[in-house]
Amino acid sequence: MDKPVFEALTVETLPGRLAGIPALKEHVGPSGKSWKVREVGDGNLNLVFIVEGERGSVVVKQALPYVRLVGDSWPLPLKRSFFEYHALTRQNARDPGMVPAIHHFDEAQALIVMDFLSPHVILRRTLIDGRQLPHLARHMGLFMARTLFRGSDLAMDTAERKADLALFAGNVELCDITESLVFSDPYFDAPRNRHTSPELDGIVARLRADRDLKVAAQHMKHLFCANAQTMVHGDLHSGSIMVTDKETKVIDPEFAFYGPMALDTGMYFSNLWMSYFSQRGHEENGSRETMRQWLFATIVEAWTVFREEFSRLWREERNGILYQRALFEDQGDWLGAEQALDHFLADLWADTLGFAGVEMHRRILGLAHNADFETIEDAGLRARCETDALELGRHLAVNRRHIHSIEEVNALAARIYSSAVVR
Amino acid sequence: MDKPVFEALTVETLPGRLAGIPALKEHVGPSGKSWKVREVGDGNLNLVFIVEGERGSVVVKQALPYVRLVGDSWPLPLKRSFFEYHALTRQNARDPGMVPAIHHFDEAQALIVMDFLSPHVILRRTLIDGRQLPHLARHMGLFMARTLFRGSDLAMDTAERKADLALFAGNVELCDITESLVFSDPYFDAPRNRHTSPELDGIVARLRADRDLKVAAQHMKHLFCANAQTMVHGDLHSGSIMVTDKETKVIDPEFAFYGPMALDTGMYFSNLWMSYFSQRGHEENGSRETMRQWLFATIVEAWTVFREEFSRLWREERNGILYQRALFEDQGDWLGAEQALDHFLADLWADTLGFAGVEMHRRILGLAHNADFETIEDAGLRARCETDALELGRHLAVNRRHIHSIEEVNALAARIYSSAVVR
Repeated sequence: MDKPVFEALTVETLPGRLAGIPALKEHVGPSGKSWKVREVGDGNLNLVFIVEGERGSVVVKQALPYVRLVGDSWPLPLKRSFFEYHALTRQNARDPGMVPAIHHFDEAQALIVMDFLSPHVILRRTLIDGRQLPHLARHMGLFMARTLFRGSDLAMDTAERKADLALFAGNVELCDITESLVFSDPYFDAPRNRHTSPELDGIVARLRADRDLKVAAQHMKHLFCANAQTMVHGDLHSGSIMVTDKETKVIDPEFAFYGPMALDTGMYFSNLWMSYFSQRGHEENGSRETMRQWLFATIVEAWTVFREEFSRLWREERNGILYQRALFEDQGDWLGAEQALDHFLADLWADTLGFAGVEMHRRILGLAHNADFETIEDAGLRARCETDALELGRHLAVNRRHIHSIEEVNALAARIYSSAVVR
Repeated sequence: MDKPVFEALTVETLPGRLAGIPALKEHVGPSGKSWKVREVGDGNLNLVFIVEGERGSVVVKQALPYVRLVGDSWPLPLKRSFFEYHALTRQNARDPGMVPAIHHFDEAQALIVMDFLSPHVILRRTLIDGRQLPHLARHMGLFMARTLFRGSDLAMDTAERKADLALFAGNVELCDITESLVFSDPYFDAPRNRHTSPELDGIVARLRADRDLKVAAQHMKHLFCANAQTMVHGDLHSGSIMVTDKETKVIDPEFAFYGPMALDTGMYFSNLWMSYFSQRGHEENGSRETMRQWLFATIVEAWTVFREEFSRLWREERNGILYQRALFEDQGDWLGAEQALDHFLADLWADTLGFAGVEMHRRILGLAHNADFETIEDAGLRARCETDALELGRHLAVNRRHIHSIEEVNALAARIYSSAVVR
């Protein structure tokens, strides 16, 4: 049988091409002719369609053989859709209900049909709007603990984990994006870099000349490349999370691979701290002080929930080949298992800060920027917000092993925010 | 085409089955009838034949579908031969001439035809015999530095490395042997454990109750499982090295996979320190004091050569995606690259000591023991030697981050050796 040829969907061709698929008949409606189709992809990489019909709505996400943001001068393999599909199935098994339900996957067409989340909006949007979400911290703390723990040798059958690691080792091109854009480009004069204001030139030069920072960033890159602890989401920023007041859904795991747990936690918290610094740029309609305090609270709560859930799983589901019960609990040495947990979480904490710091730099100095800052129109104000984040990022990356608690990071962020120093 | 059925070779069937292979015609002789075949496998896993003929000699190594030492109650897949073959080709590319040349590989029959090394003998044998090898340290220091550096993201194309990592992720069963027998069994009452004398009962109980040691051993296991830095040999003890006074060859890499660099360095040095402690049991024909001093010197030299060669490669061949020159040398910051090297080697050093410590325990308390100790007939003397090694192993594993230099490890070993304490 000939391999079907990939063809990008359009609003016009979608109904004709997908109407025969049982999952769409069931979830949208039996006749493609009556479907309403919109293209809503605003991300950097893919086509995203919303398809509505008499029975309901779905999202059709299709990869393109290049980076949408840049065009066909930057090819990117369709197989990222395959990795996204497999990541979604694993995440759903590890923390059920936290990712969109999948209705259909077509590998050759690189398309995934999944739940249309409504009235969910992108978390980053709500943060820019100054909207507080009462359940976000708990949902994300649990999601990170469960997916990171359950995809590791602490819990998985190790033969299955090694096979999965081999499968995701094929996600070379998306790993390469992170390896280059996140960990290296921001620290030298790379062609794809940009920053939004000449007012940042000084700190950019200073960061690129900062030996300790560069060594720290490369240490984090080494962990990214070599520390295959668990299946990570790989791109867990506030643009990869959709929310309502009650629900949280994690989307877009095409960057998934077996990497360090702290990549996900670090990227997540980093984006919340960046949101904190960006609030100053969104005070047209009044102070964001309450929002800033909520951000601090949600950061503390998410980390607390994460630690508590990770610890619960450590005590109750530690059935993999690492830190076996035979060596601890079965010898009556449950405190030995607690000691190991403390050591494990201490490493995870330090690495979380390391990845968080690097993420702040790449979002301000690299190719892919955050709307939190980009939507601030006043260039001077924007530069002030960005500088605050760059300073915190440097501090976290370099001093990651010597920072005591998440409250102290918040306190440092507040100190940077309120600093009277003219930069 | 039907897949050929695996069939174990015998001394009788070998010539008939292999005489048609061009590589054997060339290296042994054109007529199988005139070949002389001996089976010499004394390892735990495989069949090993020496085949001699008018043109020369080769070794034929064939895997069996079970552990030879134990029998068919412990199945072990034939594909380990596939991993050994691929490991040998990579090692030969990374440090040419340090592994036996391969003449033929048959995946279905799980057999590798390679150089017959003569008059080489197993390093462990020479150490037991008290024989000094003037070039060993240099050869092994270079071998470890070159294979470990060149198989990592410091040097390799990362897409190629990821594909290789995926390939070797299939070596599940041999990794499982290490995961179980090395990192876990020695620390609880596992069925496959044994120690050779009741005089060790006290220290065995003490080590199994040693919380810090167990946490350290599990930390090292976590690194083994998750830290896919480079292609390691995976079983680099003195039984995997063949020597003459002038040559050193590294054999038997069937345990190869992408793991932590320090696994190889740790296992290697561990076996030399065990040899040091075992010398006391081999003084029937006179003092081994000179041999002990030579062991210390060869340990220091190997580590020095390793560090120097690794540093040279860091400066000259660091062309992978880690610690890119663009961030350091190209900005005039060559000292930044030196700083990163120091940090890298500091981690590698601590992990080397961690793996060295665990290796000492498993060789005395686990399933697979060392002839260095096993050939000491006096049970009391043997227990004394083994206790020394167990004590050093515990010290290294637990204090790995706080030991300054390899000379200090030697000094500690000497202190343990000469300790007057009756145990």
